Amino acid sequence: MEATTSRILRPMQPVEIIARKRDGQPLSRAEIEGFIDGVTDGSFGDAQASALLMAIVLRGMTDEETAWLTDAMTRSGARVDLSDLPGTPVGKHSTGGVGDKVSIVLAPLAAACGVFVPKMSGRGLGHTGGTLDKLESIPGYRVDLSVDEFKAVLREVGTSIVGATADMVPADRRLYALRDVTATVESVPLIAASIMSKKLAEGSRALVLDVKCGDGAFLRTRPQAEALASTMVVLGRRAGVATEAVVTDMDAPLGRAVGNALEVAECVETLRGAGAPDLLEIVCALAARMVRLAGLETDEAAAAARVSAALDSGRALERFTRLVERQGGDPRVVEDPTRLPSAPDRACVRAPRSGYLAALRAGAIGRAAHALGAGRTRAGEAVDHGVGVLVRARPGDAVQAGEPLVELHHRARRGLDAAVSLCESAVAIADEPIAPRSRILQVSH
Amino acid sequence: MEATTSRILRPMQPVEIIARKRDGQPLSRAEIEGFIDGVTDGSFGDAQASALLMAIVLRGMTDEETAWLTDAMTRSGARVDLSDLPGTPVGKHSTGGVGDKVSIVLAPLAAACGVFVPKMSGRGLGHTGGTLDKLESIPGYRVDLSVDEFKAVLREVGTSIVGATADMVPADRRLYALRDVTATVESVPLIAASIMSKKLAEGSRALVLDVKCGDGAFLRTRPQAEALASTMVVLGRRAGVATEAVVTDMDAPLGRAVGNALEVAECVETLRGAGAPDLLEIVCALAARMVRLAGLETDEAAAAARVSAALDSGRALERFTRLVERQGGDPRVVEDPTRLPSAPDRACVRAPRSGYLAALRAGAIGRAAHALGAGRTRAGEAVDHGVGVLVRARPGDAVQAGEPLVELHHRARRGLDAAVSLCESAVAIADEPIAPRSRILQVSH
Repeated sequence: MEATTSRILRPMQPVEIIARKRDGQPLSRAEIEGFIDGVTDGSFGDAQASALLMAIVLRGMTDEETAWLTDAMTRSGARVDLSDLPGTPVGKHSTGGVGDKVSIVLAPLAAACGVFVPKMSGRGLGHTGGTLDKLESIPGYRVDLSVDEFKAVLREVGTSIVGATADMVPADRRLYALRDVTATVESVPLIAASIMSKKLAEGSRALVLDVKCGDGAFLRTRPQAEALASTMVVLGRRAGVATEAVVTDMDAPLGRAVGNALEVAECVETLRGAGAPDLLEIVCALAARMVRLAGLETDEAAAAARVSAALDSGRALERFTRLVERQGGDPRVVEDPTRLPSAPDRACVRAPRSGYLAALRAGAIGRAAHALGAGRTRAGEAVDHGVGVLVRARPGDAVQAGEPLVELHHRARRGLDAAVSLCESAVAIADEPIAPRSRILQVSH
Repeated sequence: MEATTSRILRPMQPVEIIARKRDGQPLSRAEIEGFIDGVTDGSFGDAQASALLMAIVLRGMTDEETAWLTDAMTRSGARVDLSDLPGTPVGKHSTGGVGDKVSIVLAPLAAACGVFVPKMSGRGLGHTGGTLDKLESIPGYRVDLSVDEFKAVLREVGTSIVGATADMVPADRRLYALRDVTATVESVPLIAASIMSKKLAEGSRALVLDVKCGDGAFLRTRPQAEALASTMVVLGRRAGVATEAVVTDMDAPLGRAVGNALEVAECVETLRGAGAPDLLEIVCALAARMVRLAGLETDEAAAAARVSAALDSGRALERFTRLVERQGGDPRVVEDPTRLPSAPDRACVRAPRSGYLAALRAGAIGRAAHALGAGRTRAGEAVDHGVGVLVRARPGDAVQAGEPLVELHHRARRGLDAAVSLCESAVAIADEPIAPRSRILQVSH
């Protein structure tokens, strides 16, 4: 590159880095490091960072640039060192969906198979819930463990599910705050680098990713989801972390419950073996991948058999109970889900006519739970752990006019009118039977 | 538009406006007004404004959007009302070049023809000088007149050349500060709106624009310059201001002098009838256009004759003398240019061989004057009014080896080595004669 000589003589100026991306030229590793270092120490101002983010959204990034971005972000703060674990730590991330409680079932299940599952999660914002909010519906459960506590629980139980500490990936925190207000969220390289930098900082040495697509997901279309999945698989490989991704369907809520405590109760049922088929399909597929990525089995059938055994034997449920107890939660919720918070009032949305349930749109169901108080609109808001929506019929089911399709758990009608309207709008009834579909649309590895 | 209904119910959010431009959709008038109002009152933050600016650079703007942007910017602050003048005020703007002293000759010349020429100018930054800096080399000349003083001088002399007041077009000031650090300067709609909003706020009812292109200009290529010229002509027309633009060649310095007091001295010579042909060509062409735009002549030949008469009779020089005196400057500089500041020392760059001067690149000559102290690198820096470069040979001239091509006026060698190197790099000698070219490349009206 022509500019190399002059760059040895003086530091790169933010305006020059921005201009190169504006003009569609790929950035060098040093330029990307200059950007992230400057974002972290404040020398790359908010205005400059936002202009560059928009240029990245519109001009894109090569896989190489995205890998450098991910690496620089990962190294912008503290990283967890899990090299002293007696096994390969296998991380898991989902891009989030309505009723997405997969981690809460999957982490103890994979742990029961012998996999170490470190899991640093986020809180919910908007219509998809966050794993931390769901777990905090268990009385006493602490998500704010220190790194030492996290590692101790991980070693003893095989998994620990916590929030990221404040000193991890500070560049992502600052960039995300800007992206949120500057319409620069929707970018495959920026999303991929944000997710992967956090997973790499978490200390995982292998990774399974659940990229959700459809009505209730952040990514609506399958091409977007597939592009994000393959970009993240490439990023993981380049960072020396074996990475596999599945693209899963998020057109209808996942499983039966949407809402914090309602979802935890569903997780317990699922770990008892009474899970919804769509949730079980994803959980077992991801768990089997984690077993293979941890090097515990090489054969797909053997991995699947190990997962089934862990679930059927009750060992997965027992891991969950130990996880809850070890993180300060009340383990009696496992035997007695009535100890979980609940909302006092009920309402139903019923089938407007007989036929087959053709759609139960996840976006509207998620917004209904949000309207009842299950989610937050701004960071820092409290959520109501008890409220939510229970799905009583699945797409494909034959339904009779007047039959309850969803049950709303509300508190003194708060948000109920909006929630009922949203649920009604989520429903489509067809005259003909609908063929059942797999939730798993594509696998990248 | 689908969103219209919801917008009646709630104010537009910056992030939604940014997202529309990011996705390549044209913005509505209300959205553009929301942007500029928000930039002016601070509710559209620096990060958001910068992201939108980058989206505009990469997605562009229609003529209609650019007109709305210009109008909103014009209305963001105070405007000068010149409706009580007994004639049409005709403004002039140049995009700036090396040795561009056109305004200082043109304004009194057009005034001597009967045109009212209100002129609010800027200071120089980088390698092109600013009209205000040049005029301030005249001892006592005040550029900071109040609006009432400005209008009084304009009425009495026919022209007044001042700086814009601090309360005019605040949105442009804030946007320009952001564009400068976020690599979002280079955009035809943004440049056009910035220039035109300032000219419209100045109170002009007609306008001539000099869009310079080439080595010493902000715009290097003719297609860029032509696009800017035609965009500004459209903007003027949409605002009800008759607007004409010329695209002029800026490959070599304009006229003979580059540097503040040196250029003022050249202006006086030009007003005395001893001007460089290239400078006179542009000045007279623009003056004739202003005469026609003011409605004083309809015929091109008659307008040109009126301009010649004003120049040849000495009336233009007399207007200049009155302008200087009325704005507090020492009018004796007109009769005795040695009263202008000067640098004590001289150096020459000579022809390396005999032949024809094929190029005297304006960019390098401008940077040489800057190196000697004639310009500023950061806003607010002082300039040395005495230093600069005198051009002793014009492109096309036959030159002998060792003959002086440029004469550097320096102060105790400050910046001299760099300036000499720059001037040497500016020179190209050819063996064959070079055909003389017109400075005027294109006319838009």
